Amino acid sequence: MRYIDEQSIEKIALGAAVLGTGGGGDPYIGKLMAKEAVRKYGPVKLMSIDELNDDQLVVPISGMGAPTVTIEKIPSESEITAPIDTLEKVLGKKVDVVMPIEIGGINSLYPIIAAAKKGLPMLDADAMGRAFPEAQMVTFHLDGFEPSPVTMADDKGNAVVLYPKDGVWSERLARVLTVEMGGSSSVCDYSLLGKEVKTSAIPDTLSLAEKIGEYLLDNELKEQLRINKMLDELKGYRLFEGKITDIERGLSGGFTRGKAKFEGIRDEQGRTFTLYFQNEHLVAKEADHLLCSTPDLIAVLDVETGFPITTERMKYGARVVVVAFPCHEKWRTQKGIETAGPRYFGYDFDYTALEELRKES
Amino acid sequence: MRYIDEQSIEKIALGAAVLGTGGGGDPYIGKLMAKEAVRKYGPVKLMSIDELNDDQLVVPISGMGAPTVTIEKIPSESEITAPIDTLEKVLGKKVDVVMPIEIGGINSLYPIIAAAKKGLPMLDADAMGRAFPEAQMVTFHLDGFEPSPVTMADDKGNAVVLYPKDGVWSERLARVLTVEMGGSSSVCDYSLLGKEVKTSAIPDTLSLAEKIGEYLLDNELKEQLRINKMLDELKGYRLFEGKITDIERGLSGGFTRGKAKFEGIRDEQGRTFTLYFQNEHLVAKEADHLLCSTPDLIAVLDVETGFPITTERMKYGARVVVVAFPCHEKWRTQKGIETAGPRYFGYDFDYTALEELRKES
Repeated sequence: MRYIDEQSIEKIALGAAVLGTGGGGDPYIGKLMAKEAVRKYGPVKLMSIDELNDDQLVVPISGMGAPTVTIEKIPSESEITAPIDTLEKVLGKKVDVVMPIEIGGINSLYPIIAAAKKGLPMLDADAMGRAFPEAQMVTFHLDGFEPSPVTMADDKGNAVVLYPKDGVWSERLARVLTVEMGGSSSVCDYSLLGKEVKTSAIPDTLSLAEKIGEYLLDNELKEQLRINKMLDELKGYRLFEGKITDIERGLSGGFTRGKAKFEGIRDEQGRTFTLYFQNEHLVAKEADHLLCSTPDLIAVLDVETGFPITTERMKYGARVVVVAFPCHEKWRTQKGIETAGPRYFGYDFDYTALEELRKES
Repeated sequence: MRYIDEQSIEKIALGAAVLGTGGGGDPYIGKLMAKEAVRKYGPVKLMSIDELNDDQLVVPISGMGAPTVTIEKIPSESEITAPIDTLEKVLGKKVDVVMPIEIGGINSLYPIIAAAKKGLPMLDADAMGRAFPEAQMVTFHLDGFEPSPVTMADDKGNAVVLYPKDGVWSERLARVLTVEMGGSSSVCDYSLLGKEVKTSAIPDTLSLAEKIGEYLLDNELKEQLRINKMLDELKGYRLFEGKITDIERGLSGGFTRGKAKFEGIRDEQGRTFTLYFQNEHLVAKEADHLLCSTPDLIAVLDVETGFPITTERMKYGARVVVVAFPCHEKWRTQKGIETAGPRYFGYDFDYTALEELRKES
């Protein structure tokens, strides 16, 4: 058992931005809020998955919406805890542990805020091992658990309880509500018992985010070495180094969608690359040649600092290193690929594991 | 106390199509379903508002969505009763009486189906005295009652409970859900106690619909006389007789919106008229001259039969009589006009009562 304090929040925020693969919301605002919450309510107890009791009620809390909106529409503490309160009323029992539904971006930090305010422990695990744009893209869904009842809140004082037919309908209904609520909401879905979470969640991902943050913040190392250390930890690869020459980004259906084009720099001079995203980076290509695709992870790092850049912060002229890491094995099953592979997002090619693509090239 | 049987359903459906002012859904499907329900479960007890006990739980049940969709996507009995079941769970008590939220169109018949299936009495009253396109356009909203908790169901097996901030947010959230659910849903909102309903609902409107239906079905009278009898009952006027020369109709934001143009026939030969609608008829004009506007009622009747034609059934070449009646006095208050007057629907003129417009012309 250990505690999350202001220092660990600094590291988690940075590491979660890497695992967020460009999405999950800019962690900057979440970081400030989480630090403030820990100052106000004290450090948050971090539980490992082994410490869970079978009958404890574990509740994921997350923010839903396009990251482009979250930058401008900062949630209040009570907006973040409201769906937990509603869930306790609906179930007629108290929540024992909160957890992140995804480790990427702001959603690794929301549960810290909720845990601090509610005086609850937080679980060192999530249900994606990264960030994904849609609510059914969770190991809980892959393992056959239902999201219902789903509770939601917004900044206007609206509260909602959904009993969706399945994970896909949960995503559809929650998404249109989020858009109508002004583009962001907070959500509890897939509340499960400890024994269920143990079989399905991806363990130790908050610690992993913290470790990545620690590497990237290590002032004793040069930025290229920091990145290398992180790639070793994540068994990842450098895809390319480039300069952003074109960026298209639009808000549609509650998502930030777009693509970015890159001209190679340094060793990749004269080559061109493209990244495609829907909140998160989904596909990296060199001309028509596939470099990496969802569900494997793609991250864009500032070439000077090694710090991750989210999709909504990518700017013309930025010089970046693009890296990739293998996803958790649950995403490489048939249901995993159906749920979050390239065809689900409308791309006309099959998933090939990152390691295979590296061997081919 | 009296009972609703198959004969009364026939009349109510017809009268409700008149009071539906072109909207509220085509009553044909609702009529078949209501008759079937009464055959299966027995006649439904109709309670007048005076017979309500103060502490009885009265629950409006209605279908939400664009009428154009309801024609093709027929709800099941259990889709209609599902939001009542959810409400009973949420409130932890049994519903005593069901009522129509609006008297117009299919929504006068849904509660008959629900009452029959659940073995409950139905209230002879509604909260509009007509049909309106948006959920906050109810006397309950004018009188300061809150819609929460709002329960919803669809044909897929999704259930939703909304705790909206107010009536306008209830409409916004329920509407986007309805669109996502495929364009139609069933809804319970503004569940109130008997003593509250007594102060706010518009009494005897189901009986009124039945009486109108009786006049229009009276084979002993010529159709012009049937219409005159109805106009006497409703203190209404003939606006014009015309032939539809142009009709624009689109589905947007969960509504059927459009306008119809008419060339005068018989006494009105050589004159041109326009009707504007959003599910319901909202404005009638002769060239630029206003003939009638919401919240007063406009109905389009077949010139041969005197039977009402809903907005989605209006066709090029149809020969019609367009009539208008004054709305209930609650709609002529400041809040009533703000809520459902012409400016709310985006028209750039103030409301003038139908009787005033008649005097002017």
